[in-house]
Amino acid sequence: MATDTTKARVLVVGAGGVGIMAAYALETGGRAHVTAVLRSNYDAVRERGIDIDSVEHGRGIKAWRPSAIVRSVPDVARDGLTAFDFIVVTTKNIPDAPPSVVDVIRPAVTPGHTVIVLSQNGINIERPLAAAFPGNAILSSVSMISATETRPGVVLHTYSDSQQIGPFPRPGSSSSIAQEALEDAARRYVAVYNPSGALDVRYDGDVQRARWRKLLYNASFNSVTALLRTDTTRVRMSRHVVDDLVLPIMREVAAAAAACGCALAPEAVERALLVDPTDVFFKPSMCQDVERGNLLELENIVGEPLREGTARGVDMPTLRTVYGLLKGLQLQAKEARGLWEPRFEPDNPYK
Amino acid sequence: MATDTTKARVLVVGAGGVGIMAAYALETGGRAHVTAVLRSNYDAVRERGIDIDSVEHGRGIKAWRPSAIVRSVPDVARDGLTAFDFIVVTTKNIPDAPPSVVDVIRPAVTPGHTVIVLSQNGINIERPLAAAFPGNAILSSVSMISATETRPGVVLHTYSDSQQIGPFPRPGSSSSIAQEALEDAARRYVAVYNPSGALDVRYDGDVQRARWRKLLYNASFNSVTALLRTDTTRVRMSRHVVDDLVLPIMREVAAAAAACGCALAPEAVERALLVDPTDVFFKPSMCQDVERGNLLELENIVGEPLREGTARGVDMPTLRTVYGLLKGLQLQAKEARGLWEPRFEPDNPYK
Repeated sequence: MATDTTKARVLVVGAGGVGIMAAYALETGGRAHVTAVLRSNYDAVRERGIDIDSVEHGRGIKAWRPSAIVRSVPDVARDGLTAFDFIVVTTKNIPDAPPSVVDVIRPAVTPGHTVIVLSQNGINIERPLAAAFPGNAILSSVSMISATETRPGVVLHTYSDSQQIGPFPRPGSSSSIAQEALEDAARRYVAVYNPSGALDVRYDGDVQRARWRKLLYNASFNSVTALLRTDTTRVRMSRHVVDDLVLPIMREVAAAAAACGCALAPEAVERALLVDPTDVFFKPSMCQDVERGNLLELENIVGEPLREGTARGVDMPTLRTVYGLLKGLQLQAKEARGLWEPRFEPDNPYK
Repeated sequence: MATDTTKARVLVVGAGGVGIMAAYALETGGRAHVTAVLRSNYDAVRERGIDIDSVEHGRGIKAWRPSAIVRSVPDVARDGLTAFDFIVVTTKNIPDAPPSVVDVIRPAVTPGHTVIVLSQNGINIERPLAAAFPGNAILSSVSMISATETRPGVVLHTYSDSQQIGPFPRPGSSSSIAQEALEDAARRYVAVYNPSGALDVRYDGDVQRARWRKLLYNASFNSVTALLRTDTTRVRMSRHVVDDLVLPIMREVAAAAAACGCALAPEAVERALLVDPTDVFFKPSMCQDVERGNLLELENIVGEPLREGTARGVDMPTLRTVYGLLKGLQLQAKEARGLWEPRFEPDNPYK
């Protein structure tokens, strides 16, 4: 397949529902040549393309294909490929179990050139990447979208694509890139993703605040529904679960955000509490992961906010307890994968 | 069946493993005529009696039967039965769902005569009974025993019968019985249960302290294993679950106990932490109940210690969070039984 050299070369890693919608938006915007890394859905997409039912791009998109699909992350240097201008990462982020995001994308990163866009939840997700790729710009996308791959190669997109894109904050970054260059990279990415301005995908110089704002929901509803294996509507209907758990966690996260210099608007908590429609019974991703026995996206959504807040003297007892329980569930998923073995370490005092 | 009028008439309510072992000890002690209320196991016991493999009473007890078995709690007044001297209650205690212990035993209680022995976990369990039966002595049995009905009429008894028996403390009691009469009732019950002194079943004038001591284990291990659906050995092997959850809860309960005038010995926490053998993977009853979709014995084991401690200014953030989660699980069990319906109450602000 010939490559249009005027187009940005974009690699999308994590091509489930959200990744496919990113690939679709990028490709149909006309300024990107998208390579999508497909795993379990590779064969289906190769044979029949992708069917999309989108609230935003159209209801009956049939047999769509990105410019290129691959089974695994390409090794650019080894195979002498043209460098990727952007790598968009929409995978889950599970730093406490292999493989790390760094290891996954490393073969496709051209040092000093490729811009890495992290479209993942939580805070401090950029740190290992900044350490591994100090000469590459790393961008934060805070994404609000509902897109589910209902079966391989079939995507239902029900909540429109909204992204705030900008540089991560500097503290804790090992990056050698100047702030101006980071901002420029972010604006270039927005221009590639949303050339017509039709999408709610825009540059945000204070994207870290948006990241914390999204955490209000994720740290609370994801955690609580995962532990209870229930949906957000039942949580709100049962009321005491909101009073005893969801609101306390949201307030603790808001206090941590403020302590980290990202004070949120007073109405942010109520908005996060009421954001889900109540005419459906929606189970957040962490709940779905518990029910499927998957590893949990736990550390950046719960562990890091807890550590950042606690380090600044914020009292976070509810999130701390919930974190301990979620780590217990994570250990079960690890045990099922042979990543943890139930035995007493020699130094375990609880033998 | 003729009744030996020199024997105490004892009704055992809740004839699973623990109740059957109580019935066996009482009956074979020679001073009690036991009527056991059997439910799901009635037909099996009626036909074949009870087989017991007991660490304490013998390995091969076959086809044993108490003096009388009944399908439901007898109505003494209506049916003109001889009054029961003692009612021993070994059922679960779930005050937040019907039927209450009061309603269950009421037909068998002869006012002013029957002594009610509560062999159940948690604190404040006597309050509704003292209110309903102000003229009846109510006794506290803090029981340590491991006895499981492995199938109807077959009991495996692996940890010997140990009970501390005495009056409940007076505050909060509506009882009109003098303290001396309560103590006398407790000593009479011990004499009936353990006439030879061979069993570790004894009078304890400070049984409330034992009750709090047992809560160290139940409030922590029961809650945590129920939420994680795991066993106490894995909890101790994973270590952080002990550090983050089990020990904080035990310390909070110990602080609540002290605030309630039942200060525990400094080594009580460590003993409770290490009490289970680690060569098996034991799931406490609350965990088993979650896995079976049963209602949870939640309020007297978690809710009441939390309320008692909090009312006295004890900070109990870990138990408070765990309580909120367990109430969420309880609601699911209630929903499955038609005791709760997922809908928004008109005054619910989280609609």
